[in-house]
Amino acid sequence: MYEGPIQDLIDELGKLPGVGPKGAQRIAFHLLTVDREEIGRLQGALQRIRDGVQFCAVCGTVAEQQLCRICADPRRDRALVCVVEEPKDVQAIERTREFKGLYHVLGGSLNPLAGVGPDQLRIRELLARIGGQQPLPEGVNHEPAEITEVIIATDPNTEGEATATYLYRMLNGFPGLTVTRLATGLSMGGDLEFADELTLGRALTGRRSL
Amino acid sequence: MYEGPIQDLIDELGKLPGVGPKGAQRIAFHLLTVDREEIGRLQGALQRIRDGVQFCAVCGTVAEQQLCRICADPRRDRALVCVVEEPKDVQAIERTREFKGLYHVLGGSLNPLAGVGPDQLRIRELLARIGGQQPLPEGVNHEPAEITEVIIATDPNTEGEATATYLYRMLNGFPGLTVTRLATGLSMGGDLEFADELTLGRALTGRRSL
Repeated sequence: MYEGPIQDLIDELGKLPGVGPKGAQRIAFHLLTVDREEIGRLQGALQRIRDGVQFCAVCGTVAEQQLCRICADPRRDRALVCVVEEPKDVQAIERTREFKGLYHVLGGSLNPLAGVGPDQLRIRELLARIGGQQPLPEGVNHEPAEITEVIIATDPNTEGEATATYLYRMLNGFPGLTVTRLATGLSMGGDLEFADELTLGRALTGRRSL
Repeated sequence: MYEGPIQDLIDELGKLPGVGPKGAQRIAFHLLTVDREEIGRLQGALQRIRDGVQFCAVCGTVAEQQLCRICADPRRDRALVCVVEEPKDVQAIERTREFKGLYHVLGGSLNPLAGVGPDQLRIRELLARIGGQQPLPEGVNHEPAEITEVIIATDPNTEGEATATYLYRMLNGFPGLTVTRLATGLSMGGDLEFADELTLGRALTGRRSL
């Protein structure tokens, strides 16, 4: 559509998730108006991602060092592990300030049609961690406390539920280990009449005495 | 929120127009999963923009060479010039396939509060072009045909209307020049009941006999 480098940039930006053709065009023309340093900072940030991002040796979330801040924090309850799909989910749970345990990032959810089976997720690492067999990285002083509860916090969709069921079967055999799942029900601040049937049904089944 | 380079990238992406914090996070984690070459292509496209984009010596739109494809096309009607705010507007009008003349890109609209006066727009170049005084770039063979009609196609908002009025006053004095403005009225395919009062009022005022 456009000529020369501006069209190349629009094409590349249009490949990013959530950026449509109009958005890509808007960003490209915006970048024509900003300082060269501003573009340089974006390029630099891309370069550092391209050079490779480090993942925590214990939980698998994105980290600046060998251990992420959470795994390195001695005040965290090491007996409690919350299993999530992605690093984004770690941040979402951290924002609640309700959870004081550690995490385990699977790196996705079971999706056989997309070629994601148990071996593509960090399930082996989870089992080793619970069994106390995961070798701690060098220089890590924490005694690996025995894990007493695993909270499965995969997404409440088809793949996430299938992953939760699979994990439950794998973890069920560990002696002294409680396996829990995040509650499903109505969203806080939502309207009951706008809740979908599945969610409302789950909220009924999971009703609590007051 | 995140550690290390991923947060830097989220911060930089979040500065782009139309990309919120969630969108920036989504793009950053997407880039973790793609080939290094894919990121390289985006970096390269940014570098070419950073190195500078060429603008057409006649109309001022983004161009690959000294003249844009439209100004270089001998089949275009050189007596008809459509004045738009941005290169995006050139593409929007080209998509209609209704216009066979040339363009003139102002580079924005009058907005005194934001410090954009007539001198910040390419109005002087427009006047020189109409007066036949604009020196043609070297190697351009087209005889500069006399311009007989200028269509003002600035946005139908406050700044665009102010710019149109200003341009009309400036162009009014040229002998033999017709100055027109894009029609305002109902959107095709739209619902009359959902049209805003201003648009519906304009559609009434500008009614045509069938």
